[in-house]
Amino acid sequence: MTPASALNDRLAASHPAASACLSALGRAIFYPKGITAQAEQARGSRINATLGQLTDGAGGAMGLPGMVRHLGDLPPERALLYAAQGGIPDLRAAWKARLSAAAGPAISLPLVTTGITHGLATVADLFAGPDTDVLLPEPGWGNYKHIFGTRRGARLLGYGCLGPSGFDVAPLRRALAALTRPTVLVLNYPSNPIGYVPDPVEADAIVAAVAEAPVPLVVVTDDAYQGMVWEPGRVQGSLFARLCRLDPARVLPVKVDGATKELFFFGGRVGFVTFGCGGSAAEVLEDKAMGLLRATTSSGPAFSQALVLEALANPALDEEREVLHTVLRGRYQALRASLDQAGITPWPYNGAFFVFVPVKGDAEALRLRLLDQGVGVIAFADAGAIRLSYASIKAELLPELVSVLARNL
Amino acid sequence: MTPASALNDRLAASHPAASACLSALGRAIFYPKGITAQAEQARGSRINATLGQLTDGAGGAMGLPGMVRHLGDLPPERALLYAAQGGIPDLRAAWKARLSAAAGPAISLPLVTTGITHGLATVADLFAGPDTDVLLPEPGWGNYKHIFGTRRGARLLGYGCLGPSGFDVAPLRRALAALTRPTVLVLNYPSNPIGYVPDPVEADAIVAAVAEAPVPLVVVTDDAYQGMVWEPGRVQGSLFARLCRLDPARVLPVKVDGATKELFFFGGRVGFVTFGCGGSAAEVLEDKAMGLLRATTSSGPAFSQALVLEALANPALDEEREVLHTVLRGRYQALRASLDQAGITPWPYNGAFFVFVPVKGDAEALRLRLLDQGVGVIAFADAGAIRLSYASIKAELLPELVSVLARNL
Repeated sequence: MTPASALNDRLAASHPAASACLSALGRAIFYPKGITAQAEQARGSRINATLGQLTDGAGGAMGLPGMVRHLGDLPPERALLYAAQGGIPDLRAAWKARLSAAAGPAISLPLVTTGITHGLATVADLFAGPDTDVLLPEPGWGNYKHIFGTRRGARLLGYGCLGPSGFDVAPLRRALAALTRPTVLVLNYPSNPIGYVPDPVEADAIVAAVAEAPVPLVVVTDDAYQGMVWEPGRVQGSLFARLCRLDPARVLPVKVDGATKELFFFGGRVGFVTFGCGGSAAEVLEDKAMGLLRATTSSGPAFSQALVLEALANPALDEEREVLHTVLRGRYQALRASLDQAGITPWPYNGAFFVFVPVKGDAEALRLRLLDQGVGVIAFADAGAIRLSYASIKAELLPELVSVLARNL
Repeated sequence: MTPASALNDRLAASHPAASACLSALGRAIFYPKGITAQAEQARGSRINATLGQLTDGAGGAMGLPGMVRHLGDLPPERALLYAAQGGIPDLRAAWKARLSAAAGPAISLPLVTTGITHGLATVADLFAGPDTDVLLPEPGWGNYKHIFGTRRGARLLGYGCLGPSGFDVAPLRRALAALTRPTVLVLNYPSNPIGYVPDPVEADAIVAAVAEAPVPLVVVTDDAYQGMVWEPGRVQGSLFARLCRLDPARVLPVKVDGATKELFFFGGRVGFVTFGCGGSAAEVLEDKAMGLLRATTSSGPAFSQALVLEALANPALDEEREVLHTVLRGRYQALRASLDQAGITPWPYNGAFFVFVPVKGDAEALRLRLLDQGVGVIAFADAGAIRLSYASIKAELLPELVSVLARNL
């Protein structure tokens, strides 16, 4: 029995939906018992001749002074030496503790990825392929297309729960009902590019629709913008917690999130993949995902992981986040006031960084016209809209953004 | 004409070998003109509403104090904000300057990857697939198997230029002569796990063998251990420079290297991919590789890239590296002296971190026996050998390593 087939048998016995949804690559992959696994076993040996990194012989880093002098107060080892495969164990445990409060204990130990994109790509490798459908929000983040489609050869289908007039779960329900083979469904709230967060009734409707799907599903919650909810009465956490209560014969929830936006560490590239299952199934999926991480980036950036661990250990974390949320909420409110005053009606929005404004005529032409006037926006030509981000603009400047926009719409 | 087919046409016209070697994914991929490309165009706009990251509105980062206080003297922007897609432009230029000295000007602008593994994975995505053969050094780094085989479905073939009795180019020549379809050839000197660096005559023989291959080749130089050459009379630089002089109708050289070992920044995860061509071909391959980077990790770790840039800008870099090389060379010499004294004859070795010791009987059983005695080594069961790394062991302790080994061999 090969390492992969042993894992596949365990998964079939412990999580029918996950098993049914594995791609050919997902079936073939496993974490190899090679150099890194053997080095892990040798950790703490009196004489450790396994390691492919320079140390002083006592665990201390030996770095270039021209690099070391720019490190802060953390020991150079935490920047210069390899982080563990799959992520620093303490960081994985800390992130799990953060998630367990909402999702309950039956979740896997989160794996650390090099940013959220890498988390999504890992899930795509495991579950998407030429025999798979991937159901994406429409309009949605453009990068999903390369991640799931071009790279993995999956058939991409779209569903549009949001439009200029509000939220409607019916298109998702219809898209799910029409499925005929194992499928990856991507949910993304707070959403990019629309900036929408559902209310609890809408969230329940999404989960109910998922529960009724006629095929096994992997449901990915892309929670990049988690916590960025600027209006009351909206779902505060991820839909992942609700999805974890569904039948494992039908649904595997996978949470993809990270420090990128949630901890305002855009350049850090620390993401996480967490499977909504425990026991054997979690162990198998972690092993397979570790195999994919090993074969795409090997370990992740050590210093970035160390900084995230420091942030999570800081008792003032929630207050510090709230300070930055207050800045963002202030920009959101300033932009909303200006848009209202100008009579510009975006698609419904209440979270993340974004406002999605419908456009008469060619969105790309409008983008270029605005660019000429010193205003940068993102065009979504297919949806006939432009996306404004208020994350990098002072509140005082937002009325001017709206007035330039109003003149050109 | 789709973006991909326009690129493919340009590549066919400018670099026949690269064009012939593209995988199906390599043919399909392109850098999308989506959010990141549009944001790049808006750089410097008076009002920039493209960015999905929080700033103070004037390019300044707004981070969590619990994270920022652990940064050193570099501005927080260089750690907290996104690095450019494909890598920080100044870093790419600095790495290119470093390579051009040896390889000449007709090389692409290096792309920054998240470590060397990610560089190899990107090359695998571009050029390896079910219709491709991949010719790997044997014994070689185990991770190649997942990177090129499991992930990409390529057929893996091996060649063994090194054995207990020395270097012989004939197996490589035979393996190349037997090829019948576009192939990726991986060269790895200084080598892992053997620790071997060829002399100039051997290097010329390798390049001559490549030049005579009957099929178009992508030749990847995995230069992770570049500069770690502990004996005189050995090739100092990469074979990439020699390969760049071959006919582009037959060979595309690709250099994969990084700060990981070369700048002793193991935890940084800064690698580079550089194509051995200029002009149109370089532009096309950069665009396609950027598309793959965008779809696997998006941008790379910003602070790591900033540190590498600082190291490269430091006029004392060469001296600082030499200090660490001296430590490694000292360990190499101490280990060699002990092995000679004990009458243990590894495969020929003169570089990197490694010694490859043939074993009578089961290498894995020996590894476990040594582990019980407090000594960690890596077993290569197929090759009937163990790999010792001297990179993390004080020179004083190396005689003890050898004496434990001698008792157990």
